[in-house]
Order: sequence, then structure tokens, then C-alpha cells
Amino acid sequence: MSKTAKLLLHCPDRPGILAEVTDFITVNKGNIVYLDQYVDHVENIFFMRIEWELAQFLVPQEKIHDYFATLYAQKYQMDFRLYFSDVKPRMAIFVSKMSHCLYDLLARYTAGEWQVEIPLIISNHPDLQHVAERFDIPFHLFPITKENKAEQEQRELELLAEQGVNFIVLARYMQVVSDQLIEAYPNRIINIHHSFLPAFVGAKPYHAAFQRGVKIIGATSHYVTNELDAGPIIEQDVVRITHKDTVEDLVNKGKDLEKIVLSRAVQKHIDRKILAYKNKTVIFS
Amino acid sequence: MSKTAKLLLHCPDRPGILAEVTDFITVNKGNIVYLDQYVDHVENIFFMRIEWELAQFLVPQEKIHDYFATLYAQKYQMDFRLYFSDVKPRMAIFVSKMSHCLYDLLARYTAGEWQVEIPLIISNHPDLQHVAERFDIPFHLFPITKENKAEQEQRELELLAEQGVNFIVLARYMQVVSDQLIEAYPNRIINIHHSFLPAFVGAKPYHAAFQRGVKIIGATSHYVTNELDAGPIIEQDVVRITHKDTVEDLVNKGKDLEKIVLSRAVQKHIDRKILAYKNKTVIFS
Amino acid sequence: MSKTAKLLLHCPDRPGILAEVTDFITVNKGNIVYLDQYVDHVENIFFMRIEWELAQFLVPQEKIHDYFATLYAQKYQMDFRLYFSDVKPRMAIFVSKMSHCLYDLLARYTAGEWQVEIPLIISNHPDLQHVAERFDIPFHLFPITKENKAEQEQRELELLAEQGVNFIVLARYMQVVSDQLIEAYPNRIINIHHSFLPAFVGAKPYHAAFQRGVKIIGATSHYVTNELDAGPIIEQDVVRITHKDTVEDLVNKGKDLEKIVLSRAVQKHIDRKILAYKNKTVIFS
Amino acid sequence: MSKTAKLLLHCPDRPGILAEVTDFITVNKGNIVYLDQYVDHVENIFFMRIEWELAQFLVPQEKIHDYFATLYAQKYQMDFRLYFSDVKPRMAIFVSKMSHCLYDLLARYTAGEWQVEIPLIISNHPDLQHVAERFDIPFHLFPITKENKAEQEQRELELLAEQGVNFIVLARYMQVVSDQLIEAYPNRIINIHHSFLPAFVGAKPYHAAFQRGVKIIGATSHYVTNELDAGPIIEQDVVRITHKDTVEDLVNKGKDLEKIVLSRAVQKHIDRKILAYKNKTVIFS
Repeated sequence: MSKTAKLLLHCPDRPGILAEVTDFITVNKGNIVYLDQYVDHVENIFFMRIEWELAQFLVPQEKIHDYFATLYAQKYQMDFRLYFSDVKPRMAIFVSKMSHCLYDLLARYTAGEWQVEIPLIISNHPDLQHVAERFDIPFHLFPITKENKAEQEQRELELLAEQGVNFIVLARYMQVVSDQLIEAYPNRIINIHHSFLPAFVGAKPYHAAFQRGVKIIGATSHYVTNELDAGPIIEQDVVRITHKDTVEDLVNKGKDLEKIVLSRAVQKHIDRKILAYKNKTVIFS
Repeated sequence: MSKTAKLLLHCPDRPGILAEVTDFITVNKGNIVYLDQYVDHVENIFFMRIEWELAQFLVPQEKIHDYFATLYAQKYQMDFRLYFSDVKPRMAIFVSKMSHCLYDLLARYTAGEWQVEIPLIISNHPDLQHVAERFDIPFHLFPITKENKAEQEQRELELLAEQGVNFIVLARYMQVVSDQLIEAYPNRIINIHHSFLPAFVGAKPYHAAFQRGVKIIGATSHYVTNELDAGPIIEQDVVRITHKDTVEDLVNKGKDLEKIVLSRAVQKHIDRKILAYKNKTVIFS
Repeated sequence: MSKTAKLLLHCPDRPGILAEVTDFITVNKGNIVYLDQYVDHVENIFFMRIEWELAQFLVPQEKIHDYFATLYAQKYQMDFRLYFSDVKPRMAIFVSKMSHCLYDLLARYTAGEWQVEIPLIISNHPDLQHVAERFDIPFHLFPITKENKAEQEQRELELLAEQGVNFIVLARYMQVVSDQLIEAYPNRIINIHHSFLPAFVGAKPYHAAFQRGVKIIGATSHYVTNELDAGPIIEQDVVRITHKDTVEDLVNKGKDLEKIVLSRAVQKHIDRKILAYKNKTVIFS
Repeated sequence: MSKTAKLLLHCPDRPGILAEVTDFITVNKGNIVYLDQYVDHVENIFFMRIEWELAQFLVPQEKIHDYFATLYAQKYQMDFRLYFSDVKPRMAIFVSKMSHCLYDLLARYTAGEWQVEIPLIISNHPDLQHVAERFDIPFHLFPITKENKAEQEQRELELLAEQGVNFIVLARYMQVVSDQLIEAYPNRIINIHHSFLPAFVGAKPYHAAFQRGVKIIGATSHYVTNELDAGPIIEQDVVRITHKDTVEDLVNKGKDLEKIVLSRAVQKHIDRKILAYKNKTVIFS
């Protein structure tokens, strides 16, 4: 497939938006290869994702953003983002001690499944350095204590900026990230929580699930916001358990859920299929 | 919600179709309340479902079909269907001896969940007459033998025509329907097959699943075509089983699948969300 | 199958219990047709369900309880229940205005799927009287207000006692039942809650799920205890949703979950497959 | 947990087997930590898995097999296997070009999740040598042509014997293994087939699923027998697809299924939870 532009937008719903946007692309000889739209009739918001080939497109790539902003975004009060298929986003992975999500991410990366760069792994523990080395990814250790947390996160932020990181994946990173990091990466930090949110927010959800005697456990990937485990949900999945399962069994069954649910979220993020709005996500098909 | 028109179409994909169709509705003051489209890039076919309110629409309801055919369908070689929200389709149910699907359909109908009329139930056995009576639906018995099959189906066809039936639901009807019936209702006979097609085509699929030792069983709703259990699939679902399940357990677990999978298919058909193309279905969201 | 006895028990785990119980049955010429046991190694509790044919059994049916209590229950500090396959439990259904669970229960009952008697339906609203009449089940209306609640429940209790009711199914009964009813039927009132507990306890869970932006919704059947929606969970199931689903869509998708999850719980209860212990359930296979 | 013995057996069902086996262990001061049994009432076969701690067991470990064979196996015509928790099985992995299953197996192995040794990886292509090297596992290349197949498999068999391999995992190994290999490892070669068997046996199942227009795809792990894709099924799982999914989308969605379903099967095999009987499996809890 040739190079494409991907446009995600939302704005107050009004008649004619869809026709006008598709017309803009068609008239300028862009070949539309993807279109998905959705109207939230409660909030009266129009959401859209459209992708078109740039080979014959009459507007030069570097001017598309400006043209679109001037011609349509103002008129319709649009909030929009424009991406190009030849620009790979740069992703940092944060881990602590558990390796299953990290291996799953790196296996996909190494196999070339994702259009992404992973310039670094950050951890608050040294345990997974050997995994980073197996996959030849630089590993940066930032031990965190109550006292040094603000300072260490500041150093992490500098490193992330240096490395041109666009988004962060918390692959079972067992630290609450603070507001300065969240504000630097709004809706660009993806976490995996090992429960079916909003059930079992916070620490030790498998223990809580065991205590409650649920018959199904889950995992939830979401964007990180200032409120713990309460950000926009991207993806969830579940697995059935029985009274025979111990807490350890839940942990083991949960691992498979966690890594798959996290990787699905990362894939959608990389593919520019997610539009976060208020505290929810629109996931384009 | 006020009265709406629902338009389903497919045609060879070309630039501008979407813009032109949405423009036709918008310009004529139709308020679009639903739009879903999809391009099959393998076959190069454009599929679309669009729904708009008729309250302010400038084209009179009775002329919309004609206008659309003249202005767009010819130009783009479209195959299209137009429905109006105030016209309820008329549905016949065919049953034999098992009641679970029939009860599920009638419970939804009686509760007013579906925009449909059910003028009659047809059966080749008298066993479920009492169910029809509980719900005050006329019950017609057509016993089938090898000798009388063609003749009985002819009488059924006459009855269906008299009653203005638009589509047929085979709710565990244990007879293969013949070509004359299928041709009278192309992609308008919905069957439920008690297996995860294409596994276990034909008779006694639960016995076959038991013999094979599968760990999951399924049910499949599909449009009936001339080839047994091979028509376009509308909906499928599955349930996990274990080595402890007997054939009878499979039958019982399967019943819940069958009725839910069949009812989902019927609902989508009534809502005009299905577009059958070649041997597949496009299911609009 | 000939008449069987079903024995459910739990007691502190000690070596030899299983051997001794199976020996008791075998030696007395009972043919064991089912055995499932489980040891909770955290609480150190032994759970067992065993079923045997009585045809050749040397201990007379009416003396089995006494013998077993004397010979084993004392020795092992067992809590046990004994049921016979020819005694059908009597079940009352409580409903309010929504019919989907009620239809599902009655369809199974009428089709003869369950070894149960349903002598009456109780409601706080007249809306579903017509359903009871379709299935020829006596319908008793007990309108509830804040003022009359205690008195009406007292009358319900008398009616339930008169009718020899063994357990109660709350089929979307939109009233919190009070302690006197719960104490009269401990672990014998089955409720269906329209969320994936413990998420979204209390009223309007579909609205809450919509607000939170979850990607999966669920339903939970559980025994009713004094704490709202916190009793031992019997069965749960889930269905995937998307950002396109409105609250009404959640309600509709949820209905199918609710009725299936409730009916599975009722079936397990009727089959004597559930052993509630503390705030959890052991569900035998 | 201290050292345990695991006994799996099946035999014609007769009264008293369970009592006698548990009695043998209890009387000899073995502490039973697991027991699961099942009677196939169609075939009249008794299946059992029992595990007990050896710390206080009166029969010396090396004599258990002999004692049990003499005292019970003959009497009841039992087929049984005895394993000890301190003996790790040795597993060979066969791969071709796709890495997702291999990474998943090795990530679990390296994280210490499994009680297994992986002394070698065998491949008919050099593509995944780098993965083996990342995880420090010897990689053996055996290119296969029609002409050299028998000879290469003979060399593989010798290598497997040399390395004391107990069972083989075909992790998307794109070669049909021949009878000599199957006979050397009866019910000890685990394959992952990328369809919901028995649907889409053979090559290119995702293409076939796409052509058929199914709404759900699956993956199946099974023991390899002489008949292609027809051996005893160990585990299956499925994922929902839509008309929008291309063959490539099916391949990608399927990869996650394949690796999880394969790893679940391997885990059950390592844990001695599978008893293959005729063409089915009993999977103990």
C-alpha cells in the first residue's frame, strides 16, 4: 500500500460534515481507503476517522494540516489529528518485575508486526534487564522511593523527551505515575489493570476477586488519568474461573488476559484507531 | 423518533459515492441519524446503510425509490433496497417439536421488542400447537411425508402469500425446505443450525460433536440457500463444554445458544441491518 | 434412571473422609452414579457431592439421613444435606414489570426441562399477570409502598409457607427484599443482578456502565443476603459492547444475559449442584 | 509444597475402585492433595487423577509403581501412569517461520512458569534461529524435502532420543510429521491447528474461514495421530470477527488465539492433567 494520511476528528454534529470532508479528499484526488464515523446522539458529537492514499493527492503532505484547519476545522469547531503512515510513533515501555506483558510486546515488535519504534525500557527494578538485553533494547533503571519519586520522574521525563517518545506503555509497572508525567502524555499513557474495571480498583485485584467469589475475572487497558484506574477504557477481556481456582491460579490465568488486552490496546493506539473523548474512547473499526 | 427511511445498497466502489449519497439526503433536508459503510477491497464493492428522518425531507416518501433509482442507482450500478420505519415486516415461524426457539421469539414479540408482525406459525407436527395458542397466534399444521412434500409446500406458499409474509424463520424446523420455497424467499429464510458451521453440517450435530471430542460447541444462524447448511452466515456463538458433558448435556447447553443466536439474527433482519452479498453477509453496526 | 439420593456435605478436611463415605454407599449396595469433591486448602474444608441409585440400597430411604448423621456427620463435624430425586422442589417467582426472565423460566418449566414445581408467581405490579395466565400459574399481586412493605412481606411469607415453597427466584423483581424474608429462605433466594458484580452494585447499572465507558457488560446471579448485591455468586456471564451502544442497547443486550444467567443458576439449584459456604459457592460439575 | 506423586489411571468402572485407591494412599500415610475422577457412563470407564505428598508415605518412591501394579492394576485391569513432582519432563519445540507461538512458549519457560526442560528447538527453516539464540536454546536445522524427509526425521528421532525428550510441541511447524515420529511419541506430540476443528482441516484455514464468511474463528490444540488434524483435542478457543476483517486480519487475530491455546495445552500436559482415551481427552481440573 502506498503512503496514506489518517485523519481523526470530532466536533459538534451538524448536517453535511461527512459529505464535505469526503468531498475535500475526493476532489483533491485522494483515494479513500478507510472511513468510519459515528455520531453520539446523546452528546451530539460527530466522530470520524478517514484514511486516504497520498500518491495522487493534490495538496502537498506538509500543507494538509494547515489547509484542513483553515477550511474545515474552524468552520465546524473540529478537534482533529493528522498522521502519516510513514511516520512511526516512538513508544517507551515501563516495567517492574513481571515479564509476561513485556515479552508479548517485544515479541510482536521483533517480529515486525507493529509500525512502531521502541527506543527504551524504563524500570524501577533491575529484574527485567535481562529481557531488554535479549531483545537489544536499552534498559534504564530508575529506582523509586517516596523521597526520590518526583526527582526520578523528572529525569525520566527528560530521557523520554530526548528520545522523542510519543507514548508510554505501562506493562505491569507497579508504581502510580504522578501528575507531571500524565500531563506530559495526556491520553498517551496506556496502562493494563489486572481486573475487570470498575471492579477491583487499586492493589491486589486477584486477591479481591478471590475473596468476592466471582466466576469470571478480567483485565482492562486504559489511558492513565489523574484518578487511579479511572481513565478512558480501551479494551477489556475476561476468562471464566471456578471455585477450584486459587489466588495463584487467578494470577496465572490473568497473565494471559493482561498481555493480550494490553497488546490489543497498543495495536489500536499505533494504528491510530482510538479517539478519547471525555472519559471514554471511540474505537474505530 | 420520527419516521425514517433506511437505504441499503452495494455497488462497484468508485470515488465520490458516499459524498454524493449523503449530499442527496442533506440537500433535501433529510436528517441523517445513522450511517455505516464498508468497502470490500478484495472484490472492490462499496456497501452502505444510511437512515434519515423524513419529517422535513423534501422528496415525498412514495417517490424516494424512483428518484434514487434514476439519479444514483443507474449511474453507479447500485443494487439497493429502501425501507420505511413505519412498515412492519411480516414474519412466519416454522417449527417442529422443540419449543425453546419458538418461546424465545414469541416472548420478544409479545413484549413489544420487535417491529414485526407474526401472522402465523407453520408446523409439520402438532406438538407445539399449545404454544401458539398461549400466544394467540394462528397455528397451521402441514404434516410432511416424502409423497406429499411438494404439494404441502405449495399449500404453505399459498398461505404465506395470502398472509403477506415477507420472511420466514425456521425455529428448529426439522425438515429440509425445497427449492421452490427458497426461491420464493431468497435470503429471506433464516435458519438456526445447532453447530458451529461449517463443522457438523447436517443431522445430529451434537452427536457428532460428542464423538469428535470438541471442547466448545456452537450455533449458527444463516440464510437458507439450495445447498444444505451452506447459506450466508448471519450470527454464531459458542459455549465451552468438557469431557463430562454427555450428548444430552450438549443438547441442553446448545438450546440456549440456539435461541439467542436465532433471535439476534431475526432482530438484525427486522432492523434491516443485514446485506447478503454472494455467500456472505455484511452486518451493519 | 432409577431413584437416586443426592448428598452434599462439607466439613474440616481430614484423611479418609472420601474413602469412608464412598465405602458406606458401596458396602450397602448403592450404585454411585456421580461423585465430585473439592478441598479448599486455604480454609482446609472438604466439600463433596455424591449421588447413588437407591434400587438395591440396603438402608431404607427414610433412615438414610439418620444413619448418615449418626455414623459420619458427628465424627467428621459435617454439615450435610440429603435430597431424593423423586422429590421436586417448589419454587416461587417474584417479578415486577420486565418479562424476559419470567418467560425464560416458564418456557423451560412448561417444556418439562426442570424437575421443579412452580405453584405461584408474586408481583408488586399487575403488568405481568397476563404472562402468568398464558402459562396457567396463579398470580398474586402485593403492591409495595414504604408504609405497607413489612405487612405485605408478612402476607407473602404466609402464602409461601402455605404453598410449601422451598426457594424463591427474583426474576428482575425491582424491590429490595427485607431481612425477614431472607432469614426465612437462607441461601434459597436467587437474584439476577444486571451487572458484572461487584461492578455497578445497586440501581441503574446499565446507566453506570454506559457512563464509565466499559467495553463489556455482564449479569450476575447470586443468593440474596442482608447486604445488597453482595451474596454468594452462582453464575456470571458477559457480552461485548462498543462505543456505539446506547443505554437502550445495553439494556437490550443485557436482557439476553440476564435470562440465561438466571436460568443457569436456577437449574444448578434445582439439580442440587450448589453448596454455599461463607460468602462463596462451590458449584459441582 | 513437598514432593508429590501423581497417578493417572483408567479402567472398566466397578464399585469400590475409588474407595480402594484412596484407602491405599491414606493407610500408607500419604496426604492426598488432589483428587479428580470421572465416570464415562456410555463406555463404562472410570478415570482418575490423584496426587499425594510423599514425605510420610510408607512405600518407598521407587517401589510405588510395582506395588500399585501388583495390588490394584491387575485386579481392576487398569491402565495407569505414575509421575513424581521432582522429575521435569523434557520438551522439544518444532518450528518453521512464524515466531508468535515460539516466543510465547519461551517467555513462560524463561520466567520459570513451567516445570519443564527445553533442551532443543528443531526447525525445517533457519528463520527463527535468532529467537532460539536470544533465549540460549540449541537450535537444530533439518531442512525437509520430499526426498530427504524420512532420513531427516530419522536423524531428528535420534537427536530427540539422545536428548531424552519426553514430548514434542509443534509450534506452527509447517510440515506433516510422519508415522515413525508419531509412533515414537504416541499422544506426546502437541500440535496447534489454526482453526476451530473439525472445521477447516488442512492447509490455509484462515483463507477457508474468510471464504465461508464465518463470524467466529478459532484455534485447536490436539495430540497428533496418523490422521491429519484428527487427533484428540486438548483445548480450543475462539474470537469474534466481522465482515470487515480481511484474511490478514484473521491471521493476526488468530495468532493470539494460537499461542494461548497452545500454551494452555502444553501447561496441562506438563501438569499431568490430560488423559487421552480413544480419540478424546479427559482434562482433569
